[in-house]
Amino acid sequence: MSDFSTANALIERHARRVPDFPQPGVEFIDLTPVLADSEAFDCVIDALGGEWSGIDLVAGLDARGFLLGAAVAMHLNTGVLAIRKSGKLPPPVFSRTYQLEYGEATLEIPAEGVELAGRRVLVVDDVLATGGTVAAAVELLEEAGAEVAGISVVLEVPGLGGRDKLVGHNVRCLSAG
Amino acid sequence: MSDFSTANALIERHARRVPDFPQPGVEFIDLTPVLADSEAFDCVIDALGGEWSGIDLVAGLDARGFLLGAAVAMHLNTGVLAIRKSGKLPPPVFSRTYQLEYGEATLEIPAEGVELAGRRVLVVDDVLATGGTVAAAVELLEEAGAEVAGISVVLEVPGLGGRDKLVGHNVRCLSAG
Repeated sequence: MSDFSTANALIERHARRVPDFPQPGVEFIDLTPVLADSEAFDCVIDALGGEWSGIDLVAGLDARGFLLGAAVAMHLNTGVLAIRKSGKLPPPVFSRTYQLEYGEATLEIPAEGVELAGRRVLVVDDVLATGGTVAAAVELLEEAGAEVAGISVVLEVPGLGGRDKLVGHNVRCLSAG
Repeated sequence: MSDFSTANALIERHARRVPDFPQPGVEFIDLTPVLADSEAFDCVIDALGGEWSGIDLVAGLDARGFLLGAAVAMHLNTGVLAIRKSGKLPPPVFSRTYQLEYGEATLEIPAEGVELAGRRVLVVDDVLATGGTVAAAVELLEEAGAEVAGISVVLEVPGLGGRDKLVGHNVRCLSAG
């Protein structure tokens, strides 16, 4: 647990809490200064990537999850798969639309050029809130034949039911927002 | 140069060339399979990050540049700064609007929480085409007091004048698109 408590302390020290962003009444926890600090970045990536075994590929969620996922992939000596918002990837794609609080969103991964069948994938993102985005990413990877070996996120916002959407999966959160 | 030729060969082998995307007449070079391959990813990151010296911080451009920038930062043992599209960062921000072929776009970095004055920054992105986005990122970092020590991109699209916008800067491109 010493990895976790160090990561937690560094997140607490460097994260910037901004009231009323992106809308009134919401507190935004900006991880930008955490990632820009070499010690905190290294420690967070180590904690996100550590203890998982036999990972073949790391998937990062568009866009902040790219920063974390790519660094975890380097740490684990795997490649990185970008799970993209719709319209960014050329066809053919696997696509998954999911509900947001207002409206809906779509995630996509390539259906050609990247072999996913049977590969053990670690999903990485910055924040687990309602869990809708991460759950969609998991379903997308499973549809492509991958096995989701685990999910690592930096911050969990408690009370929004994120983990309920990920029952049966190994979820690691470094810090509670 | 052996780094470069190996990286080049792996990019050539794994990149997927897609005609008529995102619009008719344009060929899209999809690097997704390059980054998802552990050997190619490692080699590309090594080539993007190698030979620069005294880098304090790596800046990745929203969104594909995040994948590359974060991995290069791990490679160089620095932190990573996300240079974001507008509206993603809480205030206060430094902001720079620039011209696209049709319309304009804005990049932002934090004006609080990340010390940039006097720091030597390496800017990383996937593609150098007209150079507008990279030039805006450079100006933004300089406005915040940073020194842009170099610019590393994977693909250069020749004939679009990208380097003309970056005169006086050290630019490294791994491959010609």
